[in-house]
Amino acid sequence: MRPPALLFDLDGTLVDSVYYHVLAWKEALDEAGIELPIWRIHRKIGMSGGLLVQALLRETSAKLNGETIEKLQRTHASAYQRFTRFIAPLPGARELLAHLTACRVPWAIATSGRLETAAVALSVLEVPHDVPVITRDAVPFAKPDPDIFLEAAHRLGADASEAVIGGDSVWDLLAARRARAIGVGLLSGGYGQEELERAGAYRVYEDPRDLLRHLDEIGVRAAAP
Amino acid sequence: MRPPALLFDLDGTLVDSVYYHVLAWKEALDEAGIELPIWRIHRKIGMSGGLLVQALLRETSAKLNGETIEKLQRTHASAYQRFTRFIAPLPGARELLAHLTACRVPWAIATSGRLETAAVALSVLEVPHDVPVITRDAVPFAKPDPDIFLEAAHRLGADASEAVIGGDSVWDLLAARRARAIGVGLLSGGYGQEELERAGAYRVYEDPRDLLRHLDEIGVRAAAP
Repeated sequence: MRPPALLFDLDGTLVDSVYYHVLAWKEALDEAGIELPIWRIHRKIGMSGGLLVQALLRETSAKLNGETIEKLQRTHASAYQRFTRFIAPLPGARELLAHLTACRVPWAIATSGRLETAAVALSVLEVPHDVPVITRDAVPFAKPDPDIFLEAAHRLGADASEAVIGGDSVWDLLAARRARAIGVGLLSGGYGQEELERAGAYRVYEDPRDLLRHLDEIGVRAAAP
Repeated sequence: MRPPALLFDLDGTLVDSVYYHVLAWKEALDEAGIELPIWRIHRKIGMSGGLLVQALLRETSAKLNGETIEKLQRTHASAYQRFTRFIAPLPGARELLAHLTACRVPWAIATSGRLETAAVALSVLEVPHDVPVITRDAVPFAKPDPDIFLEAAHRLGADASEAVIGGDSVWDLLAARRARAIGVGLLSGGYGQEELERAGAYRVYEDPRDLLRHLDEIGVRAAAP
């Protein structure tokens, strides 16, 4: 029996970038004259960017055309770029990935972001070049659709229904269920434990370090000492 | 029977400032060479500043003397000042306060912050000058000690045990229980609903607008239409 493949979300799961994404979206929305409280933006991070904008607009009853939505996404991306020097791995993230590689547990990264935005996070994590990285560019629909995770499993030669998906948002957990995978939540993106449990997390850990210590709880016989 | 007095926390409860406080603390800690993931800082916002630093340091096993802790607080305050132009009332906050005033329901503001930091929030909320505002400067211990709320009730000539306390953090709710008051949670600071319920919130509302619509649920016979 092979160990399950591990598919990781990126922002808030492996790198400490969620709060910067939140404020970059806040800036983009403000600039477009759309007033939204910050916590509502936080709760939508991890969705596809287009979906996020649509979902937020529904709460303000604002209507925007495709061109303006595209512009919002560009403004977010450039506002986020200003924060990139602050982006750091979450505690234990590099150790977790290195440990999995050393133990020959297959793993991949699956993010709703675009490669352009994800590049900094991948670089600070020192992700090896042969690890599959699936971004929003590679699939027709980002999370909470399961496509990104299905493609990540496919690239590993694994079946998503035998994989474990680690993510910090309810969108990861919904996509995990739709991919028939086991979802595991991480608190490091700022959601509460019960929010993640209610969304179907089989277990919730604080951060990658905590997950590394408990790998045996998710069926990987290679927990760190 | 008089209506219960309402005692409000400020950041995340009436003004959309929690995420800026979080990043201002992140900047101060980084500058002091203390690496902490942002979600852990978020979960400590609303505590007294000194307690917050102590609690965060415990998680890193770092040890700092009183002088360095004082410096951290100054760096946070000056980093936060740079965000002040973004500080806005949360949806419904001004309407809620004006409605209470019009209905002669006594209310006050009770925050763990210092007056210097709270001034911008009070200004965007247009808090009338005769409303009691209790800051950390006025009491020996900030939240989660109950002193700030007890003092706020006292200034209104009310008994804290007959008051309702509205706050966005578990520290507000703990302080509310210690003051023998009824605690009501607001999601607008970014905590999850269940986190606030577990900390003892009698009800949880999305934001001040949602609370305004449901005032009758907390014993104020003056809900907005």
